Amino acid sequence: MSQNKVPVAVLAATGAVGQRFIQLLENHPWFDVVAVTGSTRSVGHKYGEVCRWLLPTDIPENVYNLKVLPSNPESVETPLVFSALPKSEAKIIEPLFAKAGTAVCTNAGAFREDPNTPILLPEVNPEHTALIHAQRAEKGWDGFIVPNPNCTSTGITIALKALQNAFGVKRVFATSMQAISGAGYPGVPSLNILGNIVPYIANEEEKASWEPRKMLGEINDGQLDLADIGFSFHANRVPVIDGHTVVLTVELADPPADFGLVARTLSDYQSPTISRKLPSTPKPVIRLRTESDRPQPRLDITEGMTTSVGRVRPDNLFDLRMVVVSHNTIRGAAGGSIYNAELLVEQGFIKQ
Amino acid sequence: MSQNKVPVAVLAATGAVGQRFIQLLENHPWFDVVAVTGSTRSVGHKYGEVCRWLLPTDIPENVYNLKVLPSNPESVETPLVFSALPKSEAKIIEPLFAKAGTAVCTNAGAFREDPNTPILLPEVNPEHTALIHAQRAEKGWDGFIVPNPNCTSTGITIALKALQNAFGVKRVFATSMQAISGAGYPGVPSLNILGNIVPYIANEEEKASWEPRKMLGEINDGQLDLADIGFSFHANRVPVIDGHTVVLTVELADPPADFGLVARTLSDYQSPTISRKLPSTPKPVIRLRTESDRPQPRLDITEGMTTSVGRVRPDNLFDLRMVVVSHNTIRGAAGGSIYNAELLVEQGFIKQ
Amino acid sequence: MSQNKVPVAVLAATGAVGQRFIQLLENHPWFDVVAVTGSTRSVGHKYGEVCRWLLPTDIPENVYNLKVLPSNPESVETPLVFSALPKSEAKIIEPLFAKAGTAVCTNAGAFREDPNTPILLPEVNPEHTALIHAQRAEKGWDGFIVPNPNCTSTGITIALKALQNAFGVKRVFATSMQAISGAGYPGVPSLNILGNIVPYIANEEEKASWEPRKMLGEINDGQLDLADIGFSFHANRVPVIDGHTVVLTVELADPPADFGLVARTLSDYQSPTISRKLPSTPKPVIRLRTESDRPQPRLDITEGMTTSVGRVRPDNLFDLRMVVVSHNTIRGAAGGSIYNAELLVEQGFIKQ
Amino acid sequence: MSQNKVPVAVLAATGAVGQRFIQLLENHPWFDVVAVTGSTRSVGHKYGEVCRWLLPTDIPENVYNLKVLPSNPESVETPLVFSALPKSEAKIIEPLFAKAGTAVCTNAGAFREDPNTPILLPEVNPEHTALIHAQRAEKGWDGFIVPNPNCTSTGITIALKALQNAFGVKRVFATSMQAISGAGYPGVPSLNILGNIVPYIANEEEKASWEPRKMLGEINDGQLDLADIGFSFHANRVPVIDGHTVVLTVELADPPADFGLVARTLSDYQSPTISRKLPSTPKPVIRLRTESDRPQPRLDITEGMTTSVGRVRPDNLFDLRMVVVSHNTIRGAAGGSIYNAELLVEQGFIKQ
Repeated sequence: MSQNKVPVAVLAATGAVGQRFIQLLENHPWFDVVAVTGSTRSVGHKYGEVCRWLLPTDIPENVYNLKVLPSNPESVETPLVFSALPKSEAKIIEPLFAKAGTAVCTNAGAFREDPNTPILLPEVNPEHTALIHAQRAEKGWDGFIVPNPNCTSTGITIALKALQNAFGVKRVFATSMQAISGAGYPGVPSLNILGNIVPYIANEEEKASWEPRKMLGEINDGQLDLADIGFSFHANRVPVIDGHTVVLTVELADPPADFGLVARTLSDYQSPTISRKLPSTPKPVIRLRTESDRPQPRLDITEGMTTSVGRVRPDNLFDLRMVVVSHNTIRGAAGGSIYNAELLVEQGFIKQ
Repeated sequence: MSQNKVPVAVLAATGAVGQRFIQLLENHPWFDVVAVTGSTRSVGHKYGEVCRWLLPTDIPENVYNLKVLPSNPESVETPLVFSALPKSEAKIIEPLFAKAGTAVCTNAGAFREDPNTPILLPEVNPEHTALIHAQRAEKGWDGFIVPNPNCTSTGITIALKALQNAFGVKRVFATSMQAISGAGYPGVPSLNILGNIVPYIANEEEKASWEPRKMLGEINDGQLDLADIGFSFHANRVPVIDGHTVVLTVELADPPADFGLVARTLSDYQSPTISRKLPSTPKPVIRLRTESDRPQPRLDITEGMTTSVGRVRPDNLFDLRMVVVSHNTIRGAAGGSIYNAELLVEQGFIKQ
Repeated sequence: MSQNKVPVAVLAATGAVGQRFIQLLENHPWFDVVAVTGSTRSVGHKYGEVCRWLLPTDIPENVYNLKVLPSNPESVETPLVFSALPKSEAKIIEPLFAKAGTAVCTNAGAFREDPNTPILLPEVNPEHTALIHAQRAEKGWDGFIVPNPNCTSTGITIALKALQNAFGVKRVFATSMQAISGAGYPGVPSLNILGNIVPYIANEEEKASWEPRKMLGEINDGQLDLADIGFSFHANRVPVIDGHTVVLTVELADPPADFGLVARTLSDYQSPTISRKLPSTPKPVIRLRTESDRPQPRLDITEGMTTSVGRVRPDNLFDLRMVVVSHNTIRGAAGGSIYNAELLVEQGFIKQ
Repeated sequence: MSQNKVPVAVLAATGAVGQRFIQLLENHPWFDVVAVTGSTRSVGHKYGEVCRWLLPTDIPENVYNLKVLPSNPESVETPLVFSALPKSEAKIIEPLFAKAGTAVCTNAGAFREDPNTPILLPEVNPEHTALIHAQRAEKGWDGFIVPNPNCTSTGITIALKALQNAFGVKRVFATSMQAISGAGYPGVPSLNILGNIVPYIANEEEKASWEPRKMLGEINDGQLDLADIGFSFHANRVPVIDGHTVVLTVELADPPADFGLVARTLSDYQSPTISRKLPSTPKPVIRLRTESDRPQPRLDITEGMTTSVGRVRPDNLFDLRMVVVSHNTIRGAAGGSIYNAELLVEQGFIKQ
């Protein structure tokens, strides 16, 4: 392990999101993957030999040769773990790590609804990590759990934050067209989605209507108040590999007299200062596309951490319509949790 | 030609919509295709030899051998023509036919905005054909022009009509996911759409926000008043062959106390009496899908003329959300114009 | 049940192939589906309520309401069953039915390699059913088992039979591009195949190299001799819903002096007389496409039982190259087994 | 322009291949794009404003602002041009440049059949550039024209070269499954290829059967003798964005006793020494995949210049079967021509 780097483990490292963690952590300047965990079937085997790798880059060599460990704090003793556990396992396993003193940066949704657990986007609400103190106090943990939001909530919350700061946001109609990688592996059967649209994703509309309100909310007296924003959400699965597209109609509290300000507000959006110079900081936070037919998932996810916004135009019913494209397995999953961990190092919650 | 059948011609018969006309008119009980027209390049040749046929059934034999004619009333003398002309040509050529006494049932949008031209859906507004009298008077035509709506307007107008009759419709937020066949042939380059979403279709949002208001409007004192419905529309192109999917959030004027009435109102919808027993009448008008993940374009367009509706559920902001799937080149184009012609025969505008 | 029809059951009726059996048997003139079987999970429930139906037509109403039975001859007493069982279960369950006196027409491959079991294509080898006598004698069965070939073997064997009859076939290079429906449901994960080619299908090359030799072989002294044809086979999975495409280079024993004879031999091919007038008889057996770019799976599988052949042209190394497209879940699976059952009725092996 | 770099122009820079040249030449250590040419429609405009950019990375800033020039040597005075011209234009325009003293590295096929023009792959036949002397002498040119092969010929020729060197190659049966980007833009209409296979690409089988023989041939007495290899080729278009897959069955002259040598020969293949340390040199030349289901275009084209080979296995008829995947617009087009230019600099044909 390189000197000064934080040794980290990836929990459930053989799955689709686990693989993205491994890929994105290769050569990370602050973190070194020293352990990976997996299911009973793979424990004891070399990662590279049991993992059905799905990404178009090869498995990093050092990780290839790691022995897969069981997902428990007795086997994994790193100060930080990235969790790609499925929700039902995360509910049980992540608290064991937190109790053992480990910082858990997780993509799982098991604790997103917990009042003392922030859903964290460094571009949006770095101050919400203050809830960690209450979390520790309540649970009696030395470590803590910090989830990133659902992949669909991610891009829209970043775009809405820019609008909220400038004009206030009252109501939002949203329709998502979500990539198949969002369902993991094996995930969506090809017979369901090839040349087709599936206008339903279990529990997605609920999550994508609630999580943004939590992230856009405020901590008052140590307690997080949800933002008072109304959401109407339609979730669809589409035959796209990576990249969630969401079209939005937004009602603002104080719409600007000059509509041009809306686009400029989005393109000029800056993260809170503390989040601006971390290794995974997107540059820019929001890429404004001005072509008539962008953003598109195939063309606008190459800057993995950046949120692409386009077709910003006035609306007949509310104030504006726009399209948001975000990389669902980078910004919306593994990359998001890594960025969160960087912020938590910067804030002193994780020791280097 | 069979006795008693109306001899008809298809204008621009070699294009994608023209081919659907040819396919759907094979063995039609009331109409016989006796002439086809095409561009200068194909005039004089056998239809079957110059047409790059794209449908998975073969060219009907009698049409295969028809000589392609130029698109003008001197060459084509049938009492009824179905027009698949592109808009710019339709603007010039369709009036020539109408002036010559021909009934023009058209898929082109050239005259949809004309105040004396109805946009016709037999399930919705058969009484709007009364405008034909004013059209003839104003233009001095013996024939007339009756367009079907844009393919995207079609399905949603039928579903909204059912709601309008029962509860009144005030505002609609809609997002379409439209099949590539809607763009004709060669149409959308595969490099643009394979594994991708294009969140823009030129002029589509304007059409799909205005045409339903015209079809759902009322004739008062011989003049059509647009329905007072507000629309916010997002149009997207998706990698689907046939079948437009539209997700809708709807605000009703008088929402029912019992939400279950909404779904029943949709599934029980009956066309106006005059439209119920024509050869192309959909049975049912609206197919209500009750599965959690339907309708889907790949599964729910086989009843070509029927409109599929599903995921009818309450909404956080307005009154209800639902998903509408409609076959864009059958119900939304050629099949729609044929159904219109049948209604016009029934109403006596076209003589058998 | 209609008078005179044979009551039949479909084993493993809820899977992808089982559903095709149900669909194709609706309104069959000779057979009536009176029973369906399924896994423990679904036994006792209504078929329509436990089956995740994947086809774009609805479940036939009478089958919708059938109670799912366990797959054993105690529960299912029809004289004929169609089996869509997976291979491992077929190996155990199908003999139980055969022993109980049932005719088993199966899509499973469990007994294809058995010397006394014919692999049956009515267009190719109806005389191979003579093996049934030996099968019964050897096993002590009153019933019997007759499988259709693997979906990939089907189309190429029919095309090769036409060539074999006329010119003899010596060697064949073949490359398949196989539809995802060939892998059943859930089958191929969309992440594997969307916008991709997978150049491998487990065991497929072995089957598609051996089965045609068996079907093209001869029975001598009551024993089936494999045809002496050499095969080099590459199997690929491609992002196509239905329809297997196979490109072939063929070496003939006696190539015709006039190459035009090759195409004519294919298009004029007639099944053995006994197979020509059955309900599922393809008309024609082989559809010869003469366009430069056909057959294509999306356009050339609508005549479900017909085999499409095109691009018949001379070869640099062997005698000819051609392309074969066949509907893998109709001609190559359920439809094939139904056609087999019809032949077996005609031959008196199944009593009406 | 950076000191020491060769100023270059890209002809037909706005098309699909032209864009790849622009993308790959960004930050090239030896070449600087100082001029771009295009059609009459775009001449005089800024490249970034008239180019419908299709790649998922943005237009390099310096090229964005270049004025598009007409494609003639009066307007473009760089010592080296990369040509993405269509064949018909290349036939006329490229000789004008060669006559004017310009080195033309072209992706166009206009002169591939010319006896004094090498088709160049640095991994395969760098010594064939000796033909340039004869080309210049014959045509009276100061410059010269050097094409890269057709995208489909590229990968298979590299793999066959490795086998030819070790064992000799006698006969090859090949089936390609080619990406849509190989047809340029707009290229293949989506209605033709979505969920479909098109078993035909105009002229492709002829090119892919002949070009490898030229590249694998030898110069004797200043004249290029084609390699004596027999080809049977089937070309198919498949719904894949980038990456041509070719399955091959190969007959060797001297097959090794130990079949394992075949795979090792492929994975250990080294380019001729002069081609090994150029900026675009693939590392490795051939990536041997040992997984059962690789190479796949979606996973195995990220190392753009490397040729991926897998499923190396014995064959029933010839000696071996294998699968080759190659990036058709990088290794097989723009990247190939750039690598050629680097070799020509190294060989002294282009002066730095």
